[in-house]
Amino acid sequence: MTVGYESWGEINADHTNCILLCTGLSSHSHAASSERNTNPGWWEKFIGPGKALDTNKFFVVCTNVLGSCYGTTGPSSINPETGKHYATDFPAITVADMVKLQMRFLSEKFSIFSLHAAVGSSLGGMQSLAVAAEFGPERVGRVVSISACAQSHPTSIAIRYAQRRCIVTDPNWQHGHFYDTESYPSVGMKTARIMGTISYRSGPEWLKRFKNNRIDEDKHMGEPHGSGFGPDFMIEAYLSHQSESFATRYDPNSILYISKAMDMFDLGRGFGSLSEGLQRIKVPTLVLGVQSDILFPVFQQKQIAQLLREGGNKKVTYYELDAIYGHDTFLLDVKNVGGAVKGHIEHNLSSAAEQYKASGC
Amino acid sequence: MTVGYESWGEINADHTNCILLCTGLSSHSHAASSERNTNPGWWEKFIGPGKALDTNKFFVVCTNVLGSCYGTTGPSSINPETGKHYATDFPAITVADMVKLQMRFLSEKFSIFSLHAAVGSSLGGMQSLAVAAEFGPERVGRVVSISACAQSHPTSIAIRYAQRRCIVTDPNWQHGHFYDTESYPSVGMKTARIMGTISYRSGPEWLKRFKNNRIDEDKHMGEPHGSGFGPDFMIEAYLSHQSESFATRYDPNSILYISKAMDMFDLGRGFGSLSEGLQRIKVPTLVLGVQSDILFPVFQQKQIAQLLREGGNKKVTYYELDAIYGHDTFLLDVKNVGGAVKGHIEHNLSSAAEQYKASGC
Repeated sequence: MTVGYESWGEINADHTNCILLCTGLSSHSHAASSERNTNPGWWEKFIGPGKALDTNKFFVVCTNVLGSCYGTTGPSSINPETGKHYATDFPAITVADMVKLQMRFLSEKFSIFSLHAAVGSSLGGMQSLAVAAEFGPERVGRVVSISACAQSHPTSIAIRYAQRRCIVTDPNWQHGHFYDTESYPSVGMKTARIMGTISYRSGPEWLKRFKNNRIDEDKHMGEPHGSGFGPDFMIEAYLSHQSESFATRYDPNSILYISKAMDMFDLGRGFGSLSEGLQRIKVPTLVLGVQSDILFPVFQQKQIAQLLREGGNKKVTYYELDAIYGHDTFLLDVKNVGGAVKGHIEHNLSSAAEQYKASGC
Repeated sequence: MTVGYESWGEINADHTNCILLCTGLSSHSHAASSERNTNPGWWEKFIGPGKALDTNKFFVVCTNVLGSCYGTTGPSSINPETGKHYATDFPAITVADMVKLQMRFLSEKFSIFSLHAAVGSSLGGMQSLAVAAEFGPERVGRVVSISACAQSHPTSIAIRYAQRRCIVTDPNWQHGHFYDTESYPSVGMKTARIMGTISYRSGPEWLKRFKNNRIDEDKHMGEPHGSGFGPDFMIEAYLSHQSESFATRYDPNSILYISKAMDMFDLGRGFGSLSEGLQRIKVPTLVLGVQSDILFPVFQQKQIAQLLREGGNKKVTYYELDAIYGHDTFLLDVKNVGGAVKGHIEHNLSSAAEQYKASGC
């Protein structure tokens, strides 16, 4: 099993200053620039000296998620038994599998056995909760879960089902075994991405930015108007343009496996109730939601905070932002998201072990 | 030009008791059962003696919309010049075209020149507003616009864009000329319908009804689990099952043309502002919105009511329902939707002409 990763900052003497940053669906480990890779990362403004994840204090690690296609084993990897890509012979994966692999990797690679904090948004926020639930307070000191949930709800499952359908019904998908062929399901991937973008970003910002403005005929981006059903509005051109590169950049089978793992996420599974499953999380937890998020609506973050508190966790902080960017607010709102994350991670700063002791768990 | 229609009740002596019921995208004129067709219609509980549209008092007419495939001329009709289906040679259509055809039909077929009321929801609610805007108070006495808007907003355009993309990227669509071939774009149609259902129905009801319940393996509906990405959850099975028959029942090109007309709908187009465009609507207007509607959010209905009032219309009623069925509430909530509609249509009941005089427009 291979794990792709990047890191920022230095490990301290007793290896207790690690922050595990968990990624969302289709993301990679390049969360911020570094000497090795100077391109801006997806959380560039949140990671660095003095920033939300302060690299003067913490050793920040971000891995590719299990099932992904950016360095960690996934369906596009070569199956050593056959010498061919796994494709859809790759086994089903869960969010628990993802975090177990990350924790094993940190212990084997860096002798890190206890995290200062697990941090993530969306699928990353599912993972940060799962780290605490699966490994307990001995192994993780704090949790930050942004725009995530403790249990997938039917509308989010429905949206991901429709997205997967776009991919698996593209004739070029070939039941996943497209790798060694001339074909690639870029058409289905693009539609799936368009649906994704609608669920990540639609809302007040679009209303402000695009209204129902039509395309300047001379300057429109992307597809020609040929069919008469193509882009006439700025919002259509934006979606078309924005999804174009993604359609060939990310592995379609990775989307399928990871999206299914998100559907299956349920911290109550195997317990008497969701509340009971969440009682495994005994460490200080920051839960952050955004009112304009339609994929992970705020009622889901409220639920996490409420059930944790009812279960006896006395160190739960709940923030609800009225930002206009929907689910993707965590990528954009440095001031509010970054401020809350930094405050939670650095509050009464001590090592994870001391934190555990101090919290009286 | 052919117009398919159905009617309920009787025309009065001076032909002033007509209610034009306008349909939504993909709907047909069979709104209620009758002796000619005893199958229940899509607004069965709202039409009949004593009901919301009271057939003891009114002559209710529902036509297929222009561009549809249930009797009114549309892309599946035969082009008399070529002897072949129009397909994508059918000209682009607008909501204004739809209402103009209906008003011409009513005058030619029934010598009805003035409506008691125009009523509709969704695309039908766009049409009912357009009837009043295009024809003025001499031709329509009252308006009921449910879960509609005066101007399409970017998220609704985005969703319809993604739906159209599902159809036009299905290789069996063949640029619309599939009619005389062995192929039919049922795969793309089904995905488009699944996306439609998500936008029409997701919300509190789904959370209550489906939760994240998984399918009983022995009893699951529809697709086999073969691929590993197929239905595992009740919500997936529901979507798959519910969209199956639609995929072959409705004309794909009709969806494309009518959905595009919805995107283009903008009562401010050609006027200095939306407010100015709406000032054409001078008759009593009921605007009804549903808080759980994500396709036509309540801010859009509020906007209609507010702009009408600001423009000097003193007979605007605005209702906001907290029903749990989303956009499709108009099909289901007989008590609240039906009650509000009946109240508005029958308030100070008089002929459309008298109503016009009385309103002092």
